[in-house]
Amino acid sequence: MQNFVYKNATEILFGAGQTANIAERIPADATVLMLYGGGSIKHNGAYDQALAALANHNVIEFGGVEANPTYETLMQALDVVRDEAVDFILAVGGGSVGDGAKFIAAAAQFNGEPWDILEQGAAVLSALPVGVVLTLPATGTESNGNSVITRVGTQQKLGFGSPHVRPQFAVLDPSFTLTLPVRQVGNGVVDAFVHVIEQYLTYPTNAPLQDRFAESILSTLIEEGPKALATPDDYAVRANIMWCACMALNGLIGQGVPQDWSTHMIGHEVTAVHGLDHAQTLAVVLPALLRVKIDQKRAKLEQLGQRVFGMPAPDAAATIDAIQAFFERMGVPTRLAGYDLDRSAVKPVIDSLEKNGMLALGEHGDITPAVATQILELSS
Amino acid sequence: MQNFVYKNATEILFGAGQTANIAERIPADATVLMLYGGGSIKHNGAYDQALAALANHNVIEFGGVEANPTYETLMQALDVVRDEAVDFILAVGGGSVGDGAKFIAAAAQFNGEPWDILEQGAAVLSALPVGVVLTLPATGTESNGNSVITRVGTQQKLGFGSPHVRPQFAVLDPSFTLTLPVRQVGNGVVDAFVHVIEQYLTYPTNAPLQDRFAESILSTLIEEGPKALATPDDYAVRANIMWCACMALNGLIGQGVPQDWSTHMIGHEVTAVHGLDHAQTLAVVLPALLRVKIDQKRAKLEQLGQRVFGMPAPDAAATIDAIQAFFERMGVPTRLAGYDLDRSAVKPVIDSLEKNGMLALGEHGDITPAVATQILELSS
Repeated sequence: MQNFVYKNATEILFGAGQTANIAERIPADATVLMLYGGGSIKHNGAYDQALAALANHNVIEFGGVEANPTYETLMQALDVVRDEAVDFILAVGGGSVGDGAKFIAAAAQFNGEPWDILEQGAAVLSALPVGVVLTLPATGTESNGNSVITRVGTQQKLGFGSPHVRPQFAVLDPSFTLTLPVRQVGNGVVDAFVHVIEQYLTYPTNAPLQDRFAESILSTLIEEGPKALATPDDYAVRANIMWCACMALNGLIGQGVPQDWSTHMIGHEVTAVHGLDHAQTLAVVLPALLRVKIDQKRAKLEQLGQRVFGMPAPDAAATIDAIQAFFERMGVPTRLAGYDLDRSAVKPVIDSLEKNGMLALGEHGDITPAVATQILELSS
Repeated sequence: MQNFVYKNATEILFGAGQTANIAERIPADATVLMLYGGGSIKHNGAYDQALAALANHNVIEFGGVEANPTYETLMQALDVVRDEAVDFILAVGGGSVGDGAKFIAAAAQFNGEPWDILEQGAAVLSALPVGVVLTLPATGTESNGNSVITRVGTQQKLGFGSPHVRPQFAVLDPSFTLTLPVRQVGNGVVDAFVHVIEQYLTYPTNAPLQDRFAESILSTLIEEGPKALATPDDYAVRANIMWCACMALNGLIGQGVPQDWSTHMIGHEVTAVHGLDHAQTLAVVLPALLRVKIDQKRAKLEQLGQRVFGMPAPDAAATIDAIQAFFERMGVPTRLAGYDLDRSAVKPVIDSLEKNGMLALGEHGDITPAVATQILELSS
């Protein structure tokens, strides 16, 4: 096991009705920016419950944050933060709203051009406090210090991380997720699954507890994900998925072990250039990447196949097939053709990877643009 | 899954050499009480490393905290805290030193007789900050807000919990554990194992991720525990056990599920009355308790047997046998006779249970003193 330092100070409020408990966690005299997306929160109960909880706070609303939240929109929200002297940012929505809230929180106290936080990796030394009421289990943003932002003008999708933007609290109320569209259910499960894979599917390092925790989340997603599609009104199923998605990327399972993240980095470019949903890009990239990297990842693939997919004997190739079949079962196509893209879609993605300096990805730093090309062509 | 609220703000510094990083986590002008036990830290490196790290701090030492830390000794330490205006308490040692530090931290800011925190459940509204350099993986005290204290004068062993005494940081350096006596290695593994069991082995509640996380820790302890006895100088083995013991009782795996804790409550009385090590009492009580409660716990026992002990078919009785055999394999006797006690040892333990109001233990509240008598007699 490698040395590590880990602290996760986000307070999780899990279960139906927990939104009622946010008011006491936000200073009574705070001006709160309530950030949300396209308006689904007005139908799933989150909007009403959050406003009711904050009846005695000064709340300013800012809606319209997109899936893959854009720098352009968030800079408008930043103007509101500054004009209204906002003290606290409450994200009510999915991962995009959470990521957007974190960027605004950092930008509000950043001295300079906020884009430098993303493109230059400029240090985030402080941020406004952030809270989350989560409505879509997927990204894990509710309990980590990471954020990914898209700039439409330059077709860039870049991330940053800072402990200062870690949410102070996160409400995980599964009942808000009962009305999610099928596509978002599938996307969320695939996203959480791949978050675990990025921290697990590298090479053995004698970290058996981390391995088993990762396998625990994968097994539970495989078990519960299809149930969410088959019986969409089952609260218990949604609760299990919501807890899995949170644990998948709150940092815990990746402590002390090597990590990959090449699927995410390539996937970000596919979204930036071609507009696929984040999870769709992961479903496209991961199986092909594993086939290209099968020799390096064989030991963990075999372990995954036997422990999670119940294979009687080690079989790395069959394990990759099983992952791909699971994504398809969740309704997420796993080839570029499934999104009306052909081989000609590959080059602009690779150009974008190169432009953003993603030249040496993966746990060995050996996924060059040439290897990424091979991966995407295999997936076309 | 039941609703829950969970926050764990302890910063974990894991790995060899991490003690060097504590100084920056304690205010430079703080007067630090360095609390320790019988002196093993002067041989395993922790004492020297902690003092070196705090070379520029004002450090006052207080040694001699016992296994099962006593109220009597800790009140002496409290005098030092008050006389020297201590600002920060650094526990360097095992679970007893950690628990003692927490009690002192709470007592220092408690208005009244500190024993009321334990016997009356008086609220802990604030506490001095606590840090831990852990030298014995077992109790999980390094990353939770719990503490158990023994009063010699009245033969009472009682606990309290408060978020205010949760350590701000905990150094988990496995190299400090390489020189532990065999008895403490066995005790530590048994203690961590039973912490998981108390949060897992109740009844099914459709919390599959919590179940699998618990099973992950149990499987890893079963795998790594005997290795620590067979190859005591293997750092990697000690690292895995140390991470297991921390995760076993940092609160995570018990969120949203019913919990038992009757083995601990009965065990505390066995220690208070007869002086057995904490883990020895758990090894004595648990197998007998499971046999008495086999019908209520059958479903989870069968799941445990198949998933963790690799049994081909559900078999609750054989699962209990396997747990008992594991404790014996770790060198911890599982019957009162193993500690030169016979049936006459039972009644004073039950009297003490009753005196401390432990009249309805377990996840169903149906382990009365009469049932506890049955359990201890079965174990004699």
